[in-house]
Amino acid sequence: YATHRESQTSLQLLSCIEFVKQQTAREDIHFVRFEAADLHGVCRSKTVPARFFQERAAHGIYMPRSYLELTLSPKDNEVDHINSIHFKSDIILKPDLQTFRVLPWTAKTARVICDSYTFLGDPLLTSPRYLAKRLLSQLEEIGFSLHSAFTYEFCVFGIAEIVNSKTISFPAATLFTDHDQSFMQDLFDGLYYTGGNIESFSTSIGPGQMEISFQPDYGLQATDNAFTFKTAIKEVAKKHGCIASFYTDMAGFYNSGIFSHSLWDINGKKNLFYSGDNQEQLTDIGKNWLSGLLLHSAALSSLVAPGVACRKFLSKDSKESQDKISATWGLNNNSSTYNVKSYYTRGTYIENQLCSAMANPYLVLAITVAAGLDGIKRGLNLVDSLKGDIDVPELKASTIPLKLEDALSALQEDKCIRAYLGEPFIQYFIAMKQYELETELDSERNKFLEYFI
Amino acid sequence: YATHRESQTSLQLLSCIEFVKQQTAREDIHFVRFEAADLHGVCRSKTVPARFFQERAAHGIYMPRSYLELTLSPKDNEVDHINSIHFKSDIILKPDLQTFRVLPWTAKTARVICDSYTFLGDPLLTSPRYLAKRLLSQLEEIGFSLHSAFTYEFCVFGIAEIVNSKTISFPAATLFTDHDQSFMQDLFDGLYYTGGNIESFSTSIGPGQMEISFQPDYGLQATDNAFTFKTAIKEVAKKHGCIASFYTDMAGFYNSGIFSHSLWDINGKKNLFYSGDNQEQLTDIGKNWLSGLLLHSAALSSLVAPGVACRKFLSKDSKESQDKISATWGLNNNSSTYNVKSYYTRGTYIENQLCSAMANPYLVLAITVAAGLDGIKRGLNLVDSLKGDIDVPELKASTIPLKLEDALSALQEDKCIRAYLGEPFIQYFIAMKQYELETELDSERNKFLEYFI
Repeated sequence: YATHRESQTSLQLLSCIEFVKQQTAREDIHFVRFEAADLHGVCRSKTVPARFFQERAAHGIYMPRSYLELTLSPKDNEVDHINSIHFKSDIILKPDLQTFRVLPWTAKTARVICDSYTFLGDPLLTSPRYLAKRLLSQLEEIGFSLHSAFTYEFCVFGIAEIVNSKTISFPAATLFTDHDQSFMQDLFDGLYYTGGNIESFSTSIGPGQMEISFQPDYGLQATDNAFTFKTAIKEVAKKHGCIASFYTDMAGFYNSGIFSHSLWDINGKKNLFYSGDNQEQLTDIGKNWLSGLLLHSAALSSLVAPGVACRKFLSKDSKESQDKISATWGLNNNSSTYNVKSYYTRGTYIENQLCSAMANPYLVLAITVAAGLDGIKRGLNLVDSLKGDIDVPELKASTIPLKLEDALSALQEDKCIRAYLGEPFIQYFIAMKQYELETELDSERNKFLEYFI
Repeated sequence: YATHRESQTSLQLLSCIEFVKQQTAREDIHFVRFEAADLHGVCRSKTVPARFFQERAAHGIYMPRSYLELTLSPKDNEVDHINSIHFKSDIILKPDLQTFRVLPWTAKTARVICDSYTFLGDPLLTSPRYLAKRLLSQLEEIGFSLHSAFTYEFCVFGIAEIVNSKTISFPAATLFTDHDQSFMQDLFDGLYYTGGNIESFSTSIGPGQMEISFQPDYGLQATDNAFTFKTAIKEVAKKHGCIASFYTDMAGFYNSGIFSHSLWDINGKKNLFYSGDNQEQLTDIGKNWLSGLLLHSAALSSLVAPGVACRKFLSKDSKESQDKISATWGLNNNSSTYNVKSYYTRGTYIENQLCSAMANPYLVLAITVAAGLDGIKRGLNLVDSLKGDIDVPELKASTIPLKLEDALSALQEDKCIRAYLGEPFIQYFIAMKQYELETELDSERNKFLEYFI
């Protein structure tokens, strides 16, 4: 695996650390958080006094326990031996100093996002951020860069009692029309200083439900923002005496996390989905990319809609209830799986409607790029002329299963997605999800999950 | 469709935006709300950071979801094809910069009212503000302008428990005599700076019920005030720890929204309903206008009393219960449908007693002008000399149905009202109201509506 643009020599690292030390002295920082994302995209961190930062940054930090309590039984087939022997050992978090920022919504605390390694020093093949980084670099080798943004729906509600009835009914003091002022104030400024711009904020259809959309960014920056935002909004909400949640269960409202992206050339001059003159035509590269998404929709849906109840909204409005629906695309059509839009200033881009707010943003990006790349390399084309109609064409696009088990097995069979994401991650991901489905579903564990997400 | 008085060139637009930018810099504004009215007259908005205002104002803002959750099945007859294909696509809100104002009852926020367009750039034929604007311009072509005002009744009550019994009984600390001071303070100043003047404030018959009446204004300004007032009073009430509501249901009190209007010449010198010497006579133009209202009362009532329980008070005091009553008019007579009054300073004007507070002020104005115009153009006269009496004359004035379904079908048959309001709006309005009536009436949805209105 080749070197990339910023493989720092140790001199570079030193002066970078020196710069950070000055900043902590000047802004009177007492604590630095070393953060990493786990499989659910939930933030896990270790807090270190600033006095020990220099040491920790050079040698990394040891985290001695396994991945969130699960067992792996090496029962059936012979796998690459190098893997499971280290399962009991520590992993090392090494900070990526570019992401060092002061957290404006806490007092005297800064943070740094880390990459995780085995204790031998190799990157951990199952870490989401590492997968995203690897696929982006493959995209760069062939001279492209990704311009993307997330749009999240989430619920904010006051502290209420949680009893187990059918529908939610909260107290009247709703947050509908009261665009609580300082709440927005902290949120906007907080995100602005850690590098993310919010484009607009509005209410959504459900009571207490809100929608927030980001300004797009290049490369990894977009997912770091989403990751940061997920932590930020929980803590800002808590400061204002309420709770924010992205969770969806069978009965409640559905929180979507739409991922809209477009391809540009390497130094961000031209938009490669946009074809210049006046009527809207998708460029050839665009068609290939879109066909890749259509082809791998089944496998793709297991990563971008990972919750059991994430597919409830797909089956809302058709009479007879079969257990899979077909993937569609459309031009400016909000009820299709992939929606192609184009505006005056930003050119043409694709919105992926399948994503839910529970998905891990690093995995969403990784699998979208994997599917798109496959479309480009095999030059697929499952698309006709400009007009889209209602009736049913004959096609081998894949269908989207309505149950999670089927989506996991679809992931199981999809050869080339496995090649892109790597063997150890796929096995680990599938083993983990089945474990959730098997252990009896008493209320204990899930409520657990809900408080993290 | 021709240009009207303020067709802005892009240069005008630019300097106007430049001016707004300086104002936001000087007044330290952080957020701008882009507001539009929906069918119920409820305010829908998107909040944008001030940093992005310039862009948004030039290109408008995209709103990607449909009109408040309804389905339309194009089943029976062939309609103009250009319409339903775009139903899944976005609409664009373009701000009308004349309505840019700082909202004094919030912190660091300004607002702008928008007109809505399809994404091809044509005005949306179903938007209430657009209908009002079009009918007013027709009025101006024939050299008239409308001088009008609204008078609203609404309920303000503290936060109470909502159990499902027959009548309301609240705690004793009523707002009867306590003209809560700073509450009025904020309300009056708030409205004054956004262009609306309140004439008087008093208590009404129901407990917790209040009546507020505005100073009249010319043209669209009167409805913008009403629209603003509906949002303002909810938020000011919330700041003072209580809730304001315009809703009427079968059991509670009736909140009226009386619309009083008069015709003037183009530059507001003479009142065309007023005839000069001493005993009160309505001018010929007045009689035509009044006859138009009388003729179309059935269709008119479906827009100015759109709630199921809005007609409860019509049938209060007659013995046998047939299902329609006749439209009447009177001179200084408060129990007739249309009441003609005349005072020393403001001359003669007509009060429409049918209107309820749930009506959408833009639609109330649009249909009143439509009916009046019809009376003028066909020179109708259903009126005798000055005296009005109690006994029953022989006449073909229309009758007012007591059930909403009948009012909708009356709207269905009224040819010339449809011509004025346009085909797409009528179909859409009727389809939407039937949808409310059909879906089973469990408590869920309606309570929904109640919290918006």
